[in-house]
Amino acid sequence: MSGHDVNGASFTDIERAAMHQALDAALGGPRGANPLVGAVILDPEGRVLSVGHHRGAGTAHAEADALATAREHGIDVTGGTILVTLEPCNHQGRTGPCAQAIIAAGLARVIYAIDDPHDPAAGGAATLRASGIQVDSGLGAEQARALNARWLAAVDDRRPFVTLHIAQTLDARIAAEDGTSQWISSPESLRDNHAIRQRIDAILVGTGTVEIDDPRLTARTPDGELAEHQPLRAVMGVRPIPEGAAIVGDDGRAIHLATREPAEALAELFDRGVRHVMVEGGSRIIGTFLSAGLVDELVVYQAPTLLGSGKNSVAGLGIHTLAEAQSWDWDHSDGGAVRHLGRDLRLHLQPATPQY
Amino acid sequence: MSGHDVNGASFTDIERAAMHQALDAALGGPRGANPLVGAVILDPEGRVLSVGHHRGAGTAHAEADALATAREHGIDVTGGTILVTLEPCNHQGRTGPCAQAIIAAGLARVIYAIDDPHDPAAGGAATLRASGIQVDSGLGAEQARALNARWLAAVDDRRPFVTLHIAQTLDARIAAEDGTSQWISSPESLRDNHAIRQRIDAILVGTGTVEIDDPRLTARTPDGELAEHQPLRAVMGVRPIPEGAAIVGDDGRAIHLATREPAEALAELFDRGVRHVMVEGGSRIIGTFLSAGLVDELVVYQAPTLLGSGKNSVAGLGIHTLAEAQSWDWDHSDGGAVRHLGRDLRLHLQPATPQY
Repeated sequence: MSGHDVNGASFTDIERAAMHQALDAALGGPRGANPLVGAVILDPEGRVLSVGHHRGAGTAHAEADALATAREHGIDVTGGTILVTLEPCNHQGRTGPCAQAIIAAGLARVIYAIDDPHDPAAGGAATLRASGIQVDSGLGAEQARALNARWLAAVDDRRPFVTLHIAQTLDARIAAEDGTSQWISSPESLRDNHAIRQRIDAILVGTGTVEIDDPRLTARTPDGELAEHQPLRAVMGVRPIPEGAAIVGDDGRAIHLATREPAEALAELFDRGVRHVMVEGGSRIIGTFLSAGLVDELVVYQAPTLLGSGKNSVAGLGIHTLAEAQSWDWDHSDGGAVRHLGRDLRLHLQPATPQY
Repeated sequence: MSGHDVNGASFTDIERAAMHQALDAALGGPRGANPLVGAVILDPEGRVLSVGHHRGAGTAHAEADALATAREHGIDVTGGTILVTLEPCNHQGRTGPCAQAIIAAGLARVIYAIDDPHDPAAGGAATLRASGIQVDSGLGAEQARALNARWLAAVDDRRPFVTLHIAQTLDARIAAEDGTSQWISSPESLRDNHAIRQRIDAILVGTGTVEIDDPRLTARTPDGELAEHQPLRAVMGVRPIPEGAAIVGDDGRAIHLATREPAEALAELFDRGVRHVMVEGGSRIIGTFLSAGLVDELVVYQAPTLLGSGKNSVAGLGIHTLAEAQSWDWDHSDGGAVRHLGRDLRLHLQPATPQY
């Protein structure tokens, strides 16, 4: 059986199944500056030759990953079809244009779900067609759009993708009555957080957090060394950064965003080239991003401890009654929605209603 | 290889492995009025014939469960050894004495981990020995004691086993600013809670909860009918129960515990035959039980929603600084420590430090 998709192209059940597999594979990657993308290569008889996915900014695109896997296994993909959840790119980024790699590999057909929303990246389909490859799109478009709904929205809005980080107790406290908060999380959670810091462009806290906690916000390797990649350290708020604050450091990578408006802070970060920012706190900053609908991903480290008092993780949403509660969905990408990290739980969520 | 255990008995590696398997099997049951118990039956050559565990008050003991499984599969256990994590009982409870069942089944040897702490149940070992069965104990004693540490403590203290129930948002709110709280939890979580209500002896709330929420606290089946077994409904606090409160009902199963002291409330419940009570709230009652160290098990239904204000799930622990935070361990019994229940997470924990 076959059917017609939005753009009139017709696809076989085998191609539909392969696109489904590509969408599943996409979930293996992390969210951030780049979208989740998966790819499946079929031979001319429709057998799966290789599966790939994108593992985050700076790593191979899904198509390149699937081609590399085939190559490693000595599999000939000539004359085959590649199914990708996003239009292959045509630009020389950090990883080379996928359209050229597909042409070089001798693939005969490309089926992709949705167009790449970036101008510089667009044009992959045209290049492929010009080289004689059959290109169709629209298969799995709805799922591919839902998969990256928040990323697509961020690209549209010309703002960075926003990950919110919360380290809380079982009763959602981020500090005890006396302000102590180091360390609520397990060493494994802290390590996970530092791994995220190593793949984001910027980390953002409020002036209050700098005044109270004086964090360094550097990215560190598991053995405590400074990581090679350090995110920009952004302090948001109208008060000045206290003199001698640890966050300033000596690498010129700290900036002050003198605004209380998350949208303004994000616009400034975007202008500085930031495509993925992690908001680390405090609870007022967290509240302003949440109520503005400007959190794309939520990572909560929840320790199995109780305080019964102290600072709540989230405040100032302006919600009066239960019916107005913000709803979130479990995010199964990048290792799953719920994981044990040492004694902690790591919860991974995304906004419940795709907004595109 | 073999070694000597606390009481001087010597056990083989096969017997040690079987006791380990019995301890694992024990985790399949729920906590409450009865302890977690597992049993493994070996043939005279040391091969595993059957495994059983206890599934909660009113159901077969672990030994009876293992014997029944062997019988169902037509397996002859004559001359075999049964390993049990708790001394077989000798009393005619709801399920018949296990000592007699073991004798009747023709088993030649019994190895159990720890003595039954109850006077009426004790004596199983003596009965077994009198009938010519070789009985040894102490194998796996430390693990068996840790497995039921809180249950053993409750028996020692002559108080019910206490399960604490919390239904909260991701930011640990149990009600919004305007007091609305129905329903924070998913239908699946509510159903799970009602399943627990059907196997406990009593449910306890504070007078404040009755005044504000006016709950019925009946146990209902998935189709909304009144369950056959209804727990005693206890209201704790010095203020009177408001006239016409739904909790009073018309079955005479509601009682008022006119005290603010959890230990006093538990003593009165114990005198009324209650061996398992679930504390449902509100946050002040929860705080008094937690700070008294009188919570043996914690079940948290956590919805993927945020309120940012409203009532916190836990209050009044008197904790000032992070180092004093109450620590909990993940409880892997009864279906696991972390489960998805509809959109919610169900978290299952026990106090971190066994107190025996």
